[in-house]
Amino acid sequence: MNVEFINPFITALKNVTSMMAQTELQPGKPQLKGDQFSRGDISGVIGMVGPSMQGSLSITFEEKLALHIMEKMLGEKVSELNEEVADMVGEITNMICGGAKKNLSEKGHEFNMATPAIITGKNHTINHQVDGPRIIMPFQAESGKAYIEICFNK
Amino acid sequence: MNVEFINPFITALKNVTSMMAQTELQPGKPQLKGDQFSRGDISGVIGMVGPSMQGSLSITFEEKLALHIMEKMLGEKVSELNEEVADMVGEITNMICGGAKKNLSEKGHEFNMATPAIITGKNHTINHQVDGPRIIMPFQAESGKAYIEICFNK
Repeated sequence: MNVEFINPFITALKNVTSMMAQTELQPGKPQLKGDQFSRGDISGVIGMVGPSMQGSLSITFEEKLALHIMEKMLGEKVSELNEEVADMVGEITNMICGGAKKNLSEKGHEFNMATPAIITGKNHTINHQVDGPRIIMPFQAESGKAYIEICFNK
Repeated sequence: MNVEFINPFITALKNVTSMMAQTELQPGKPQLKGDQFSRGDISGVIGMVGPSMQGSLSITFEEKLALHIMEKMLGEKVSELNEEVADMVGEITNMICGGAKKNLSEKGHEFNMATPAIITGKNHTINHQVDGPRIIMPFQAESGKAYIEICFNK
């Protein structure tokens, strides 16, 4: 995978949570991911399709971080991963992918985004059906961790 | 949602399992789905994006039906929902969506398909982030049940 593809997603997530929820995420080191287990409790997954490329992105949040972001955005306490939290994760998934799309488009990598689906469930797995390596990018906030996974066929 | 959109997916799934795995699926009555719980143990989810439409499809299999289909395709016993079964569900997801895409394109409804992601996990939920009603189509085979869910914004 083109390493150029990694930073736009890191920047997009940091910007989105900082702007929308005053939550600062510290990015860790991107790594290859060998298994299918989601590291978090609620995940957004979105497909990307362009004339010469296919990709899949997922972002997953530990429950306490997802609830913290929701609380910051709403201004009130949220106690479970309900449909409103799923919608919020969907919105963040769209915004990260949209932010990275804009950045990558300026570098000549064009793709369209599908709509995200949001997955919950203890120990769920997500298997991206794209023929390429999977990169996982960890993020740490005070209230928990988040991870972006991307997989492109080029 | 346009009811024209339902039958192409039913036909595509019946054809795919019949051809690939000599497994006959009896379709039940399509219904509106009000909750987010997946009815099966392993699901494929794929986004569809066109000039004037957005859609999301998921197909889910009960474990025993997924293992039965895998066994029929490989000619050997499979005992767990491993990565090969995930790839098989990904392939079926692509084929159903591709079959319906061809049919709907002939009726003037154009969309591109993203790549699928495969989800496993007991009691997982899938929340399609498309602004439209969700239709669930049940299927019964001798060895278990499968369900297609589709959601379109028109």
